[in-house]
Amino acid sequence: MKKNKIPEVTIMRLSSYSRVLNDALAKGDKIISSKGISALTGVSPDQVRKDFAYFGEFGVRGIGYNIEELKNNISKIIGTDRNWKVAIAGLGHLGGSLVSYPGFLTRGFIMAGIFDVKNIGEKYGNLYVEHIDNFETIAKKVGFDLGIIVVPKEFAQNVADIMIKSGIKAILNFAPIMLDVPENVEIKNVDLSMFLEMLSYYMSIKM
Amino acid sequence: MKKNKIPEVTIMRLSSYSRVLNDALAKGDKIISSKGISALTGVSPDQVRKDFAYFGEFGVRGIGYNIEELKNNISKIIGTDRNWKVAIAGLGHLGGSLVSYPGFLTRGFIMAGIFDVKNIGEKYGNLYVEHIDNFETIAKKVGFDLGIIVVPKEFAQNVADIMIKSGIKAILNFAPIMLDVPENVEIKNVDLSMFLEMLSYYMSIKM
Repeated sequence: MKKNKIPEVTIMRLSSYSRVLNDALAKGDKIISSKGISALTGVSPDQVRKDFAYFGEFGVRGIGYNIEELKNNISKIIGTDRNWKVAIAGLGHLGGSLVSYPGFLTRGFIMAGIFDVKNIGEKYGNLYVEHIDNFETIAKKVGFDLGIIVVPKEFAQNVADIMIKSGIKAILNFAPIMLDVPENVEIKNVDLSMFLEMLSYYMSIKM
Repeated sequence: MKKNKIPEVTIMRLSSYSRVLNDALAKGDKIISSKGISALTGVSPDQVRKDFAYFGEFGVRGIGYNIEELKNNISKIIGTDRNWKVAIAGLGHLGGSLVSYPGFLTRGFIMAGIFDVKNIGEKYGNLYVEHIDNFETIAKKVGFDLGIIVVPKEFAQNVADIMIKSGIKAILNFAPIMLDVPENVEIKNVDLSMFLEMLSYYMSIKM
């Protein structure tokens, strides 16, 4: 299965197809068409077909896709066919809400370490807040796969350095700052106001 | 200025360019090149130029872009040259953190109404939690522009219907469900686990 060179927007859509396929399976459906996926995701049927063509999934003309197979293939592509251990740094409002974000666990992302510089020892779910200074030691024991940074921007680079030094190769950064990371580390910046700006863009063009 | 037909990914990038331009202005810079923007955002200089070409911004060859002008033009495009009144429904962990999300206010998104079915009267910042049943009445007084839905998925459609009935034309939906909205209403679904899946995708292709 070809796994590289898939555009980022396609990965985002695969991720969203995979959700509706799960729902369809849960309802007992076996087969779905590109049009059916389109109706559930808002992506055009043509785009759906194009996205699947990246990994050689063409369905059966006039019939559709076997939902279970398609779902499994997408999982293999986006890496949700296994679990990932996540470490989060920064337990402010947003960070605290991410620790218990229900969508993470159901998609195989397991909170495995929570770090801050205050409220050490406080309990979130079955985890205790650890001091960021102990990150490397704990990482050695737990083996984190992914890091989430939700600290104030002035501390974000330092936290990223600690995570990388501890072996983390992929970071989701909510701090509003570009972090400097080595080439072999994947970083994804998220700014939630970006989504509101996509809406304000649409509102503006209608005015 | 042409404002339509700009792809969604370009809007997301414009939104991110606009952040680094703000930072550059704050540092006292006047001029920036595509390469400079590239270094600050991780987008290739070619893509930066292509994105600006959508709205006829070409800079001066060998010199670059006037930061202030560029920033203002992007603001006009994405609609951050004005303020938007935001109503949020659902004050669980994530909803509660969105109310005080610092990035919203600095980008012109003003929290103007917070709604739930419990903890009515509780204070968040300078707002009191209102019952969702009073949404329409309050919307008439306040005039909300955008709605954010962070309620459990079984209530999300009902909340969307209330928002739309009250005149809201653009909704950011965090509930993991496709909402049925009229054609003239813009909806954007956000699932935060999608970002972790983009990382797990990159991790998987390296394995």
